[in-house]
Formats: sequence, structure tokens, C-alpha cells
Amino acid sequence: MTSIRIIKIGGNVVDDPTALATFLDSFAALEGRKLLIHGGGKIASAFGRRLGIEPVMIDGRRVTNAETIELVTMIYGGLVNKQLVAALQSRGCNAFGLTGADGGVVRSKRRNPVPVDYGFVGDPVAADAALLERLIEAGAVPVVAPLTMGEQYEILNTNADTMAQTVATALADRYAVDLVYTFELEGVLDQNKQLIPTVNRARFEALKADGTVSGGMLPKLENALRAVEAGVRSVAIGATIIST
Amino acid sequence: MTSIRIIKIGGNVVDDPTALATFLDSFAALEGRKLLIHGGGKIASAFGRRLGIEPVMIDGRRVTNAETIELVTMIYGGLVNKQLVAALQSRGCNAFGLTGADGGVVRSKRRNPVPVDYGFVGDPVAADAALLERLIEAGAVPVVAPLTMGEQYEILNTNADTMAQTVATALADRYAVDLVYTFELEGVLDQNKQLIPTVNRARFEALKADGTVSGGMLPKLENALRAVEAGVRSVAIGATIIST
Repeated sequence: MTSIRIIKIGGNVVDDPTALATFLDSFAALEGRKLLIHGGGKIASAFGRRLGIEPVMIDGRRVTNAETIELVTMIYGGLVNKQLVAALQSRGCNAFGLTGADGGVVRSKRRNPVPVDYGFVGDPVAADAALLERLIEAGAVPVVAPLTMGEQYEILNTNADTMAQTVATALADRYAVDLVYTFELEGVLDQNKQLIPTVNRARFEALKADGTVSGGMLPKLENALRAVEAGVRSVAIGATIIST
Repeated sequence: MTSIRIIKIGGNVVDDPTALATFLDSFAALEGRKLLIHGGGKIASAFGRRLGIEPVMIDGRRVTNAETIELVTMIYGGLVNKQLVAALQSRGCNAFGLTGADGGVVRSKRRNPVPVDYGFVGDPVAADAALLERLIEAGAVPVVAPLTMGEQYEILNTNADTMAQTVATALADRYAVDLVYTFELEGVLDQNKQLIPTVNRARFEALKADGTVSGGMLPKLENALRAVEAGVRSVAIGATIIST
């Protein structure tokens, strides 16, 4: 089976010009088939402020209202995505930018508005592996922005980690998929800040139960475990290998 | 030879919600292979004003400086392109948005900065028919924003009429291409405001010489004539047929 590497970078990489340039050098130099999924970064908030779009928060979480989905469509799907494409093209990598809405490549379900309506936010349910394969086999390197197509054909703001898991799982029928979540730390750390080299489902439950992992790491590990359980060949969060 | 229709819509259609909805209904209903190229519209200027980006004009023509290329990248490549994709998807048309920079699908040459530097503006020189064909044969309907990739891998602002001619010409090796420039008038009009049913190169020169056509219609007809002279099966500006 042909291999493909799927790399997900977060806003922390997108926002840091030095870290981004280093990452793009490495990504462009990777041999073989590859695909990049990127987060949004702070640039949408910065443009939002300039446009007078006030962030709306409920219980500390951002609501994607009508003007915010326009904002992230232009920033994630336009500015960030195309700047990544141009930067990769200049490094000899035939990057091809898209959002999950293009060709309905990543379909999602809008989050239940009850009890809290977070607006235009969707959780991915399926990816069109056939269309992605066509692009990849034509020599293109898909660069995917974190937007998806909802059931009402609306553009929805989507978590890039979950998108990476959905895309990796869909491609696992056609390729041996190695999925990497880049991470600001070395990997998953224990309470003494030492790297945990491998995590499987049982270890995850133990780490969750004793509070070693918490907060944003919980959904990240859940996404990683789901990908590997669904047939993705390897999954890593930084230097931590996630296994079945 | 398989047929494909390439339709170019201008900013006047993009800017008018009623005209746009009517156009999208018709476009979605077209049978067979098709591709849409869209202009930008006034929305970039409107967002530019909100962002405090002052238009810079030289001799009445807009200069695309560094902040303006960011603006049109987010608006044309992000907001307008993805809203067209979503609107077509909701009409049952499998739209797939891209710019000419994605996969280097439309390469351009930055305009000579001497005597006047118009900034990040490029004139298209070639389109990658193979990659477009892959998308089209996978059942996708490319929706192309007026941005291209320059020789330095920079994103360049590009005239949508010229892009349509370049894309149509590149695809003419693989498909029987029918290119339509939608137009706010019935078609090319004579001095009595009557439709001129057909224009060829000789007729164009006569219409130019006697002042019947002038201004923005001159490059539009030039693009149309070049397309038909380069093997595009048919070209129309509104109801006027352009022929060799």
C-alpha cells in the first residue's frame, strides 16, 4: 500500500513566522505523498478587531455567528490557506489549497444548538477520499483549511484536529496513513514533565483518571486514538506515539 | 471530443444578489462538464474601507500594494469563492473552489513595473489543463477566483476575462470548449444600441477604428478573439458570438 503523511499544524505554528518557516522547510522536503491540515491562528481575531467584529463567548468558548463565519472563511480559507500555498510552492512543493467545503470534501454536522448555540460550528462526519486521491495522484499536495460543509450546505467552522482524524481515517482505505499532530511541547508529558513515549486506549483512560492529561489534551488524544483505531497506520502527537 | 462550458461572471453579477441567484440557478442546471471563473466585485473595496486600506490609484487604475493583495486574497480567494461554492453546492452542483495559485493552476507574469508599478498584478501565461481535467473528470465543477501564481511564487491579482481566455485555451486540447463571458448588456452593441450578432478579427478592427467599441470592451473582445483563434470551439460575449 502506498504511504501518505498527514501533518496537522496548529495556530501556534501559523502565528509564529520563524516556527512556520522551519516547519515549511521540513514539510516541503518530505519525500512522497503528503497532505497538510492547518489551524487558523490569531490572525482572524486580529482582523476581526480591525473590522469591529466583537468576539462572542459563551462559557469561555467562542461563538461563530454570521459575521464570524464570514471572517474565518476569508482568513482561514483565503489569506492563511493561500499564503501557505504560496510559501510551499516557493519551496518546490506543489501545494493546492482547499477547504472541506470545496467539492464537499469534508462534510460535517452542525453542533446541536441546545443547550448552547455555538453558531456556525460543525463536527466532521465524513471525508471524500476519492476526490482527495485524484488530487494527490495528480501530484498535488492538499493544504486544507479548517472549514467544512454542513448538511444545509453551509460553511462551518471546524476543529482542525478532528478534521485531521476524519481525513486520515477516510484515506486509510487507500493509503498507509501516518498522521502527525505537531505540538508546542515535546509530546504528551507526565506530571514530572517527562515525555510519555506511547499511549493506547487503556493508558489514556488511566492518564485521564489520575489527572495527568486534562483540558485541550483530552480531545486531542481522543482524536488520535480514534484515528489509529480506525485503521490509520501510525499516529503521533509530537514525539508521543499513539497506538491501539 | 467531450464538451465543457466555461462561464465567466463579472463583479456586476457577484455584487447583485438577485442577478447572482438567477445566474447560479441557471449555472447549476447546466448539464455536462462546466467551470466558473468569477470576478471580484466591490466587496473587496468595502472590506478595504472597513480595514482602513486606502485605495491607491495611478492614472485612474488601482495599484495592488502589499496590503491590497492580502485583502483580495482573503476576499476573492476566501469569502467570494467559498460563498459561490456553498451556493452552488446547495443547488446540487459539486462546486470546488480554487485560485490560479493552487497547484500553480494558472501561472502569470507580474506586469512590468516600468513605467508604472501596479504592484502585485499578473497577466496569465499558462494554465495546467491536466490538473483541471482531473478535478473535472472526478465530477467536480471548478470555481476559479481571479488570483494567479507569479514567477516568484507570489500571489498576483489578475483580470478574470484574461484568466478565462487562458483557461479555455489550455483546456481546448482536451475538450470542445464553449466559453461565455456574461455581460451586463445584451451583447456587443453598435452605435444605435443594436446587438452586433457576430464579431471576427476583421470586424473587430473596423469597430475599433470607427469608435463603435471602446474602453473596457476592447480588451474583452481581444480576449475573446484570442480564445477562438487558439482553438476554443465557441466564444460569446452576452449574445454576441465571437468567431474566427
